[in-house]
Amino acid sequence: MKSMLIRNGHIVTASDQFKGDILIQDGKIAAIGRDLKVQTLETIDALGKYIFPGGIDAHIHMEVPCSDGSISAGYDTDSIAAAVGGTTTILDYVLQENGRSLEESVSRWSEKSKLSAIDYGFHLIITQANDRTFNELNLLVEQGITSFKLFMANDIAMTDKELFRFMSEFKIQGCTACIHAENKEIIATLQEQYVSQGNISPTYHAKSRPEPTEVEAINRAITLSELTGCITLIAHISTSRGLKLVQEAKDRGIPVLAETCPHYLLLSEDKYELEGHESAKYVLSPPLRNPDNFEGLWSGVLNGAVNIIASDHNGFYYSTHKQLGKEDFRKIPNGAPGIEHRFSLIYHHGMKRGMELSRFVELVSTNPAKIFGLYPQKGTIAPGSDADLILFDPEAEQVITAKNQYQKSDYTPYEQTKIQGKIDTVLLRGERIVYQGKYVGTLGKGNYLKRTIQ
Amino acid sequence: MKSMLIRNGHIVTASDQFKGDILIQDGKIAAIGRDLKVQTLETIDALGKYIFPGGIDAHIHMEVPCSDGSISAGYDTDSIAAAVGGTTTILDYVLQENGRSLEESVSRWSEKSKLSAIDYGFHLIITQANDRTFNELNLLVEQGITSFKLFMANDIAMTDKELFRFMSEFKIQGCTACIHAENKEIIATLQEQYVSQGNISPTYHAKSRPEPTEVEAINRAITLSELTGCITLIAHISTSRGLKLVQEAKDRGIPVLAETCPHYLLLSEDKYELEGHESAKYVLSPPLRNPDNFEGLWSGVLNGAVNIIASDHNGFYYSTHKQLGKEDFRKIPNGAPGIEHRFSLIYHHGMKRGMELSRFVELVSTNPAKIFGLYPQKGTIAPGSDADLILFDPEAEQVITAKNQYQKSDYTPYEQTKIQGKIDTVLLRGERIVYQGKYVGTLGKGNYLKRTIQ
Amino acid sequence: MKSMLIRNGHIVTASDQFKGDILIQDGKIAAIGRDLKVQTLETIDALGKYIFPGGIDAHIHMEVPCSDGSISAGYDTDSIAAAVGGTTTILDYVLQENGRSLEESVSRWSEKSKLSAIDYGFHLIITQANDRTFNELNLLVEQGITSFKLFMANDIAMTDKELFRFMSEFKIQGCTACIHAENKEIIATLQEQYVSQGNISPTYHAKSRPEPTEVEAINRAITLSELTGCITLIAHISTSRGLKLVQEAKDRGIPVLAETCPHYLLLSEDKYELEGHESAKYVLSPPLRNPDNFEGLWSGVLNGAVNIIASDHNGFYYSTHKQLGKEDFRKIPNGAPGIEHRFSLIYHHGMKRGMELSRFVELVSTNPAKIFGLYPQKGTIAPGSDADLILFDPEAEQVITAKNQYQKSDYTPYEQTKIQGKIDTVLLRGERIVYQGKYVGTLGKGNYLKRTIQ
Amino acid sequence: MKSMLIRNGHIVTASDQFKGDILIQDGKIAAIGRDLKVQTLETIDALGKYIFPGGIDAHIHMEVPCSDGSISAGYDTDSIAAAVGGTTTILDYVLQENGRSLEESVSRWSEKSKLSAIDYGFHLIITQANDRTFNELNLLVEQGITSFKLFMANDIAMTDKELFRFMSEFKIQGCTACIHAENKEIIATLQEQYVSQGNISPTYHAKSRPEPTEVEAINRAITLSELTGCITLIAHISTSRGLKLVQEAKDRGIPVLAETCPHYLLLSEDKYELEGHESAKYVLSPPLRNPDNFEGLWSGVLNGAVNIIASDHNGFYYSTHKQLGKEDFRKIPNGAPGIEHRFSLIYHHGMKRGMELSRFVELVSTNPAKIFGLYPQKGTIAPGSDADLILFDPEAEQVITAKNQYQKSDYTPYEQTKIQGKIDTVLLRGERIVYQGKYVGTLGKGNYLKRTIQ
Repeated sequence: MKSMLIRNGHIVTASDQFKGDILIQDGKIAAIGRDLKVQTLETIDALGKYIFPGGIDAHIHMEVPCSDGSISAGYDTDSIAAAVGGTTTILDYVLQENGRSLEESVSRWSEKSKLSAIDYGFHLIITQANDRTFNELNLLVEQGITSFKLFMANDIAMTDKELFRFMSEFKIQGCTACIHAENKEIIATLQEQYVSQGNISPTYHAKSRPEPTEVEAINRAITLSELTGCITLIAHISTSRGLKLVQEAKDRGIPVLAETCPHYLLLSEDKYELEGHESAKYVLSPPLRNPDNFEGLWSGVLNGAVNIIASDHNGFYYSTHKQLGKEDFRKIPNGAPGIEHRFSLIYHHGMKRGMELSRFVELVSTNPAKIFGLYPQKGTIAPGSDADLILFDPEAEQVITAKNQYQKSDYTPYEQTKIQGKIDTVLLRGERIVYQGKYVGTLGKGNYLKRTIQ
Repeated sequence: MKSMLIRNGHIVTASDQFKGDILIQDGKIAAIGRDLKVQTLETIDALGKYIFPGGIDAHIHMEVPCSDGSISAGYDTDSIAAAVGGTTTILDYVLQENGRSLEESVSRWSEKSKLSAIDYGFHLIITQANDRTFNELNLLVEQGITSFKLFMANDIAMTDKELFRFMSEFKIQGCTACIHAENKEIIATLQEQYVSQGNISPTYHAKSRPEPTEVEAINRAITLSELTGCITLIAHISTSRGLKLVQEAKDRGIPVLAETCPHYLLLSEDKYELEGHESAKYVLSPPLRNPDNFEGLWSGVLNGAVNIIASDHNGFYYSTHKQLGKEDFRKIPNGAPGIEHRFSLIYHHGMKRGMELSRFVELVSTNPAKIFGLYPQKGTIAPGSDADLILFDPEAEQVITAKNQYQKSDYTPYEQTKIQGKIDTVLLRGERIVYQGKYVGTLGKGNYLKRTIQ
Repeated sequence: MKSMLIRNGHIVTASDQFKGDILIQDGKIAAIGRDLKVQTLETIDALGKYIFPGGIDAHIHMEVPCSDGSISAGYDTDSIAAAVGGTTTILDYVLQENGRSLEESVSRWSEKSKLSAIDYGFHLIITQANDRTFNELNLLVEQGITSFKLFMANDIAMTDKELFRFMSEFKIQGCTACIHAENKEIIATLQEQYVSQGNISPTYHAKSRPEPTEVEAINRAITLSELTGCITLIAHISTSRGLKLVQEAKDRGIPVLAETCPHYLLLSEDKYELEGHESAKYVLSPPLRNPDNFEGLWSGVLNGAVNIIASDHNGFYYSTHKQLGKEDFRKIPNGAPGIEHRFSLIYHHGMKRGMELSRFVELVSTNPAKIFGLYPQKGTIAPGSDADLILFDPEAEQVITAKNQYQKSDYTPYEQTKIQGKIDTVLLRGERIVYQGKYVGTLGKGNYLKRTIQ
Repeated sequence: MKSMLIRNGHIVTASDQFKGDILIQDGKIAAIGRDLKVQTLETIDALGKYIFPGGIDAHIHMEVPCSDGSISAGYDTDSIAAAVGGTTTILDYVLQENGRSLEESVSRWSEKSKLSAIDYGFHLIITQANDRTFNELNLLVEQGITSFKLFMANDIAMTDKELFRFMSEFKIQGCTACIHAENKEIIATLQEQYVSQGNISPTYHAKSRPEPTEVEAINRAITLSELTGCITLIAHISTSRGLKLVQEAKDRGIPVLAETCPHYLLLSEDKYELEGHESAKYVLSPPLRNPDNFEGLWSGVLNGAVNIIASDHNGFYYSTHKQLGKEDFRKIPNGAPGIEHRFSLIYHHGMKRGMELSRFVELVSTNPAKIFGLYPQKGTIAPGSDADLILFDPEAEQVITAKNQYQKSDYTPYEQTKIQGKIDTVLLRGERIVYQGKYVGTLGKGNYLKRTIQ
């Protein structure tokens, strides 16, 4: 039996902080205690370090296809980037391919994900809202895929009728709907107007997706949740008004949940006024917003309205992918790299705003695990849970830069950001995969996570 | 020159109350004063009576077609009912007929309305959201049709894209959008579910249109108003939450307006639990609601959130029209008679709740005139305005009953309701058309009102 | 019988606008009409001019005593300033003098006010919350004093117990409470802290009265209104949060009313950062605020939350009165001159923000008249009302400057403000007292107004 | 070294649930794990049982004096009742005695509390808001008393000035203010009115403390927290509007916290309509409210607005103490017994409303510990924490009845309430003090808890 002892760490869970030792056996936490008297093969001294449960990034996209057939970064590089960044579990959004069943899409995806350096599960993006898809939902649930993304915008948007139908079924199956909430038709109209006027630069990506188009769609998604009873996560909320609607809905007992991302908390729409094509780096949906939103979003992060902070990672390269759409902003691939720095960015800025350490753990690990059926295997430090652990040095410093990142992308939206605190060691099921901030693991060691319904 | 003097009335406008005389010349108000020294052909003593400006019912439907080809009551009877009920101007919703241009539809409608006993104008219900319709909007505006109804529900619903397109154009033309705000797709889905389960009685009309389907659509309409800048009247608001959204939008400077109807203020969903097919009498859209809504709606009536109270009159007969749909609630014609009692019902219940007389005038006459481009010709008592006047006896009493009504319908939703106060005399442009509560006018004397843009 | 005819004006009331003539007989409006056929002693051609009802400034202070025994400007000058500024009625706050009965205070005040150039009524500031004062309230009501100011701050503040007692009695008597809503004790504490730290400049006047001290007191005043049923006007609201509380209370049916002043709509706290002692000019209570409040306050002005705009005029001189307190901001007399420019400032800035003319009339004339028992004698243009009329030239321009003002003060907070539109002629009960912008009346022609209860 | 092993429990903390063993050494938790391999003196099999951290009742009153000199139940009985009811730590409100220093009061209290069966700490009720009291605050903090109760109502109420002064000092010292938020003066006035009208029965206790008197005071307390920066717990919130104000303040970043009690969640004002003097049993402050408040309060319990649920225990006897005030409701001692059933009542009703077990633990144990400086010694199950543990049988049932209670009171407000789930075993620092629901401990074993500042 393989065993390891971590001594004298400052252990942090979503509710507790205490000093102690962690005994790991066969990849699981066997015991937590003071001065544990055990013999183990290996011992780590964690004095002066925080021990967090491994980060869970509940919203990432690997190998996203672009209009020219190229694809964004995949598991071979960016699952390593996740690990180095303190994330030991990712939930990747599998895209239902045109004309294919959900299962076929998952099956093909499973091939790619075998390379993963960390554990992973799948959400499914339903793009074919037909009977065939509808009828295979229970099969997917059996395979451990219990959450589905429904788009209210873009080409793959569902109608309200389709949303209602699928969300009603999710309620029956015990699944969660993850909603991309933007108003498809208004955005499409504004896009056409801008392009027809010759307004083709990245700036018009944001101008064609004004705040009310998100707020409206969030309100509609809440209505669908209220009427179907379906647990509904509003993905990547970018506006304080949208978040406020979610909070009000919670207060009325509607089963809605809020996710936001580091870029909405830290970056704003001035990025769309950069010279040349630079703004294309920040083309993502919903777009970056007026900084007036910061206060409301951070208040939700600190006080409870936000349930999850995820990266919405898309590993695009500026030199190739983002050059698409130079003549038409609509062709710029939507998304930006973020898997590697989510954990550190939220730690750093959270601390600056007085966030409690337990709240940090809750947002980046425990809540995602609970909401998406991974708990208690993942998301906490407790006997019986997987020994996915982050040893974090609060005294060290780092500077984010594309040059030194593991992410395959040739840029980061957070270039030259200074961060207080640094990930030192990462354990995945008791195996050290990051040491002194460097990846020391092996590709393909990640396991597929079959998720349960709530 | 034809002249008339009304002496010693208690004159009420949207801001003022005073005792005085009104001199009418050639159908217009020539002067208002104390003890006017003039010789006129005719004199009316109004001592003890309120003199209100003629009521304006800004939302009525004449000759609505049913699924069996029959039609609801028309101008020949119900324009008289309006007159007797204190309404001297109606705005009728002309339905764009399938495959026809707006102008053709108006043209055919103009034939029917020639019979009208009172003055009238038209809104247009756009059912064909195509280029041809789009391109004739300015023509309609020239003809004095400056408001258009857009449906978000039912078979004639527009998509958000179409709504955005038309509302953008209205903004340019200076027109007003009147929105039927309910979520088409959710309602259609719920209807199908109920019918497929054999739930076909009128009760399920209401159950398939739950409150969130209205609130959602109102929110979406507000979003469209915010983004297009189009002046937007939310028609027949039935929920206090919906009205609250409108008030919040006004506070943010969005050009939205609120209309509600007597039935939402006075009747509630218990009407859908009546025996036999009786509940069909109350099948209208949006449906009657939980009485929890009364407080919020009346607060809006008294304190300012509501701009207009209209009847949404549909002159259906219970013995024929409402029998359609006995096997399927979806076939019951939507609507109920109300043109005759709007004025008295709101007066009576308003007084009971402490409404000021001027606020009553504002809601039933002045605001509709101002909002829909009829002011100052209509909607007030001022020199130069049409002499459309109601002499109202606050001491008299009446009981509403289908038996004695002028409306052609064989029922009224307000059967046996006692009303304090009674309309005694109605003048249309200086002509007495109602005397001692009886119609004494001539069909066809009503004029078409060419409306102006705001 | 004295008579006058004003021809062809653009007449504006709180609900109507129309072109017409006004016949005045014996100081009252006898008739309003088109092309009135009458012979009068005098005729005024008002072509191209707005005719507004005379302004009513419901909140002014004449002859306010300072700590050195000097007093602010009085009726001899500032009632003329009011007239020139479009105000034909003022409601002056009589201060109950220390140790005196209300009646004695009114009696002494009545001597001073005999000089008034315009009509006037009194509110009473109760400073002695004892039985004697309590017992003479009904006597005051008989004398036409139907509103009483109660302070929640400053040396003359009442306790909650006293407020409750007096407001309960007002409810019985039908009177209105005008509340100065700031938290006495917190402000006093902050003042002491600042002064003890040597912070004695005018800046600390504002810092010791932070926004929450107003918002808290407004909330408490609303609670007292809710529990006693007393009609309660919150005077001089300076914060958007405070105004929002009043609106919410109205929505819940509580009889509260909102007053604000031009300085809270147009000036902000940067005035407390001026060089030397200049900031003393802007020392008033509540103080000028963060400009973040503008949006909410103006929204209330445009959309209905605000009932009255008054000047809160205090005719202090910078060269003498405001020099008091150079060593201690607490000794600077609180208040600033404003009686002369309220009407024009609100007209000018209202038009710029899209205010309707009728709403302007409502705020500066009709609502004050109705709320304070002067209507319909004052506050409108209707047969039987006093012929207090403003002929206003919307094409003329003016620049506000202390040099040219009628106000006795040696400064104005609005120095060099350009105004579109100008008062040309003012009639007081049919007498021309301002002509071509100049005062042409006679001191002492103003009448005392005995007010009625609502 | 004394040791104990609890095997196979379902361990619940404020964020986690897992199956496992707990090793206790020397009264502290030494380790938590799966199948711990250790030898201990004693082993408990917890299969099928929940293991919760010991309950912390953060608001109780022991030995409260009545007007006739008698006192309510004390430590000798009611600390045992707490233990049997799942509470291992109490925070007792020490009343500063008239004319005495805080320290003298604490010193006298410490004598009484020596009897305690469970651990205890003190809050201090400041009744003498003078310099002497002010100057000894830091001394109290050194003694581990870090929270102070300030009354806004009743005879011992502070003025706003005093509140501001003390809360400013708390901010400096790092202490927490616990506020009894009701408006003293309005309540006193209403009480006088009722009594003078001969309305002396318990019903008028509630009528003289209407909801707005609480809501107003909560708003004022929030204002004081905003201006001083003092961490402020609003004690025993009884109204949903009051709780909403606290939530809004949190959203604005103000350091306020909300406490409510089982009786506000479960009982309502109909208890004041009982026959005879029975209603006196429910005379407590704030009083029981309209059941309209339940929804908002429970929403706060489930969704996060509420931080703590405490009992506000007062061990009065109906047969003696509550008979006081038969001739004047003001003399009825305020309060009711509740220490014994808080834990079970909230468990039972929480489960019925879908509360998560971790949220239950947070409200009744972890949050009180964190907020009041007892964490991590108390309030959780983690290595190093005191082994205060509750073994709870979710399958057992109990019926609350005064006959069988340990509380000394001769009644309980929850007579005959059925509860699903039952406390089986209670450990205090590793010592079994309750076994099979019976007290098996020894009086005087409770330790005084010196608390830390946040």
